[in-house]
Amino acid sequence: MNEVRRQKIYLKMKDPKEALEIFFKHLRPEPIPDAEELPVHDSPGRVTAGPVFAKISAPHFQSAAMDGVAVRAEDTYGVTERNPKRLKLGQEALWINTGQVMPEEKNAVIMVEKLNQIDEGTIEIESSAFPWQNTRKIGEDFVATELLFPQNHRIRPFDLGTLIGGGVLWVKVRRRPRVSLIRTGSELMDSSSISDVSLLQRGKIIESNSAVLSHLIRECGAEPIVGDIVEDDAEKIKRALLRAMDTEADMVIVLAGSSAGKRDFTAEVIEEIGELLVHGVTIMPGKPTILAEVKGTPFVGIPGYPVSSYIAFNQFVRPFLYRLQGLNVPERQSAPVIASRDIPSKLGIEEFIRVNIGSVGERLVAIPLTRAAGSVTSLSRAEGIIRIPSVSEGIVAGEETKAELLVDPEEIASTIVIIGSHDITLDVLADEMRSADRGVRIASGNVGSLGGLMALQKGTAHVAGSHLLDPETGEYNISYIKRYLKRMPVHVFNLVEREQGLIVRKGNPHKLGGIEDLARGDLRFVNRQQGSGTRVLFDYKLQEMGIDNSRIQGYDNEEYTHMNVAVAVLNGVADAGLGIMAAARALDLEFIPVLKEQYDLVIPSSLVNDWKIELLISAARSEEFKERVKGLGGYNPEKSGVLWKIV
Amino acid sequence: MNEVRRQKIYLKMKDPKEALEIFFKHLRPEPIPDAEELPVHDSPGRVTAGPVFAKISAPHFQSAAMDGVAVRAEDTYGVTERNPKRLKLGQEALWINTGQVMPEEKNAVIMVEKLNQIDEGTIEIESSAFPWQNTRKIGEDFVATELLFPQNHRIRPFDLGTLIGGGVLWVKVRRRPRVSLIRTGSELMDSSSISDVSLLQRGKIIESNSAVLSHLIRECGAEPIVGDIVEDDAEKIKRALLRAMDTEADMVIVLAGSSAGKRDFTAEVIEEIGELLVHGVTIMPGKPTILAEVKGTPFVGIPGYPVSSYIAFNQFVRPFLYRLQGLNVPERQSAPVIASRDIPSKLGIEEFIRVNIGSVGERLVAIPLTRAAGSVTSLSRAEGIIRIPSVSEGIVAGEETKAELLVDPEEIASTIVIIGSHDITLDVLADEMRSADRGVRIASGNVGSLGGLMALQKGTAHVAGSHLLDPETGEYNISYIKRYLKRMPVHVFNLVEREQGLIVRKGNPHKLGGIEDLARGDLRFVNRQQGSGTRVLFDYKLQEMGIDNSRIQGYDNEEYTHMNVAVAVLNGVADAGLGIMAAARALDLEFIPVLKEQYDLVIPSSLVNDWKIELLISAARSEEFKERVKGLGGYNPEKSGVLWKIV
Repeated sequence: MNEVRRQKIYLKMKDPKEALEIFFKHLRPEPIPDAEELPVHDSPGRVTAGPVFAKISAPHFQSAAMDGVAVRAEDTYGVTERNPKRLKLGQEALWINTGQVMPEEKNAVIMVEKLNQIDEGTIEIESSAFPWQNTRKIGEDFVATELLFPQNHRIRPFDLGTLIGGGVLWVKVRRRPRVSLIRTGSELMDSSSISDVSLLQRGKIIESNSAVLSHLIRECGAEPIVGDIVEDDAEKIKRALLRAMDTEADMVIVLAGSSAGKRDFTAEVIEEIGELLVHGVTIMPGKPTILAEVKGTPFVGIPGYPVSSYIAFNQFVRPFLYRLQGLNVPERQSAPVIASRDIPSKLGIEEFIRVNIGSVGERLVAIPLTRAAGSVTSLSRAEGIIRIPSVSEGIVAGEETKAELLVDPEEIASTIVIIGSHDITLDVLADEMRSADRGVRIASGNVGSLGGLMALQKGTAHVAGSHLLDPETGEYNISYIKRYLKRMPVHVFNLVEREQGLIVRKGNPHKLGGIEDLARGDLRFVNRQQGSGTRVLFDYKLQEMGIDNSRIQGYDNEEYTHMNVAVAVLNGVADAGLGIMAAARALDLEFIPVLKEQYDLVIPSSLVNDWKIELLISAARSEEFKERVKGLGGYNPEKSGVLWKIV
Repeated sequence: MNEVRRQKIYLKMKDPKEALEIFFKHLRPEPIPDAEELPVHDSPGRVTAGPVFAKISAPHFQSAAMDGVAVRAEDTYGVTERNPKRLKLGQEALWINTGQVMPEEKNAVIMVEKLNQIDEGTIEIESSAFPWQNTRKIGEDFVATELLFPQNHRIRPFDLGTLIGGGVLWVKVRRRPRVSLIRTGSELMDSSSISDVSLLQRGKIIESNSAVLSHLIRECGAEPIVGDIVEDDAEKIKRALLRAMDTEADMVIVLAGSSAGKRDFTAEVIEEIGELLVHGVTIMPGKPTILAEVKGTPFVGIPGYPVSSYIAFNQFVRPFLYRLQGLNVPERQSAPVIASRDIPSKLGIEEFIRVNIGSVGERLVAIPLTRAAGSVTSLSRAEGIIRIPSVSEGIVAGEETKAELLVDPEEIASTIVIIGSHDITLDVLADEMRSADRGVRIASGNVGSLGGLMALQKGTAHVAGSHLLDPETGEYNISYIKRYLKRMPVHVFNLVEREQGLIVRKGNPHKLGGIEDLARGDLRFVNRQQGSGTRVLFDYKLQEMGIDNSRIQGYDNEEYTHMNVAVAVLNGVADAGLGIMAAARALDLEFIPVLKEQYDLVIPSSLVNDWKIELLISAARSEEFKERVKGLGGYNPEKSGVLWKIV
């Protein structure tokens, strides 16, 4: 390992728009000329390879458009109410039903409602018919030889009606573009090779990007070809790239290895066998993207972090694949949103910020999630993505901007935004809200109890989750609400009573008895951030015991959730932290109870009759919720959903 | 056939909203409880049957977040630029790459950019590291046991990253709802039984609704089961309905036969074996819809006309299928549009008007298509659907309303609206515009030449197609433009020179020689509407020959396109009409040339530099277009695309 490090650098980084232009100009994507003829039933989603003409007219015969009798219009001329006429059934008038062929010699239909039957053989009419009245004529919709669809038309389900009506039972469509996916990384394991994930080796990762991209490729109408995993070895990667050319792929994607790190060989291999067009794009996530050409085939090097890979795919692969089918690139649905807080961004970089979105009052509010490209949940838990262009230094709280949606707009209309303190029972509540008759989404932001109250004040949340103890009164939340939510009447509902305690490693190796031991000096503590209920509780306890916080090593080491505190203990960053029992349990850590506290949902009174909020409260009161919460350990759901105060 | 007719009636017709409520209240759709466990790779598009929890944390081991060296942070304390420190490689510092496992005893990474390599065994650092700097900690994204997705979540491609990252390689999803489709109609033929559509019998129809609905059902995430075609026979339909119950379908759709016509047995059969909830809904198209229940299974009777069937499906089947999956019903994308002309509508009926939509200036303009429920092209050629509620008498020209989109919004942005006279070469141009490097859609409305100029004046079209002869000057279009397009400078481009003539039945049975013979008295003529170029031409010719139009039988019988004129002749409604050669050819009719005329594209000068218009003109000038136009017969494309006048 002790070789001299050679440091690689990116080619001059390119702006994403410029990068795409270079790629398109160099490779000139054109609709794939190869066509295949498909039974029309299998054609939806496919793209016509040429103009499609009607083989027969629609309708292709003259028929009755009403139930009634077919007559010769000429036989009815002069007939009026005062001058009715009788017609002989079977001769002058023939019963006919909608859709039936018009008999020879007859050219009009009189509706059954407009005639009187005299006897089995005779009807009487009271008005005259004009030629072709109540009939459908040949070619009324279209005639044989008429253009039904131009080339490069993506066939939709209802287009089958037109095609089949025109006698087109087989249709020529473009071959789907083929995309070869090369997976690189010595740390990667194919999911099919794993029998028990709990035995997964340290340092190994279950490869997932190819699964995600395969489905994204299919969504674009193309076909993925996933190859074996290739180790981080220049020679092996080169062979895999050359092999991919043999699959006659219309595009090759090299997954990971596109960065400028030591084990990133994609760029150098491509330089050897083809032409590197772009290495490095000024987007985040997605910077280490490669655009290249090898023997006429487009190559895209896509970074390995899940979010980076998604963003880079959308920027460069998706438009190319649509172009190969002669289609416009469909834009994703978007909506105007208000930023819930400042979102600073670096000049010169286009940033893609994943956000939760909820409809609060008249506005859609966007709450930014973590920016870490490695956090795949920042994508799967987001409702949208905000782009901050490279010329912008970011968005300020309250500013309106556009978000591309990752969910249907009606999902957002039925999303409750809960901001504030984090509690694991909110996850359970989220699942209950998603059930059968509720169909409501919960988007939650963890900013601590006080942050939640502030969000209500700013109108960027529906509900605040809070457990702020007032040491003076021993009461939870109310004094804080009075101080911070002036002029906003709220209802306060209990969610759970829960146990707070010290989280330590399995077996309690430092033999902690309680908070007093934290001042012993041999322990590293991990604290919660200021404004969180747990921090308020901790400071109160220290004061009560007369312990100066300077005596607590790690007092300034802050984390934002119970889970993060538990993770810090698990990782050995800290020896102890204050948090809830469920967090300790989830990570199989030890828990030393300190006290029971109250966790409430604070809801503006103006919202309590909203259908979503009513469902939320009824879910909190349900036996299902209470049972599941009990199972977590450290919770008492006895008063869940009880309204205990209107402030 | 001579039996006494019994007339059936609808149950009291229901408002669509009320109808849906009755249906839902009676059948109470709930998410299907049956689940199946799928490999995660196959799960996108499916719906989670329960909450999904992480099996492993992500990341599940501590790793380097940068390329560099792993160190103990404690070994670096106190190091500054002025107080650098040397570390022994292989002992105090270990080379590490992004993603690699952190070695035991090391807790921080120093980036390769921030160190100097002194020799093979030594590096020097100039700043201190803090614990866990440049590392990814266990559970940074989520920890084992954490909720990844609630129940009733439709899995998207990028959700696979979260699932696989959480070690979830198999996922429990709801069984897809099964929908049994019963096709009724003695006139129907299954497409698979047809070897040559040109031999299709009069009175027979190739069944297409089941193909359309099957794909719509799949789009909703459900699974269609298509049965054999059933004749219009109450007993046979009853047996088919009962058989459908055996397929364990979650819903049964009976196609056609739902009306109140003589051969419509669905309602009476259902009344016999189940409960008819709704028969007849106040929507158009789609009125003869049936909602019912048979032994606990929802039954929907859907009318046979293609557009009615599509509308009824969206109104009643789609929401039910989503509900069976615990999902909200995604709304279709919509856009605000301006009506290009008055769209009257009947009070008490909710109408679904299919429209072409184009973006003209700042506005989206909607041009209504035919309302005939039998016209499936009114759906496949539309860009959107406008709903006119039952309380409205319609929309007036220029009014803003909402259109549900049938195409992606960017398709509309790249649509050219051509209004005016109809010509078949516009179809060819449309196909050329759709080709490779153009990707532009043409939406055309046939309202005659004058109507086209008026549309330009009103700002509801980009281009007018016109062939208006000025008898005084012998020149085309210019004098009309000057009269009708005051204050709007336009460019006039030639599209084609074409032959106008008399269209008569094959063999010219009435031995017509020219226009003068139309006054013979034994011939029925079909005319074009006032304001059309062909009508102007015809009137001019009559005047020139001194023929009084009262001598032309059928002079007042007006059709709107060349093709409709040809169809009238083919159908025997008329013996002759004036039109273009290509229309006669398309229907294999005879053509008697009368004169050559000029067909122009009139384009506001403000638009000629628009990219779409530039592509249109270049397409009109292309050899491909000219070659195809020549092949149609009766056209001279010599001057296609030539700018011959700026007015």
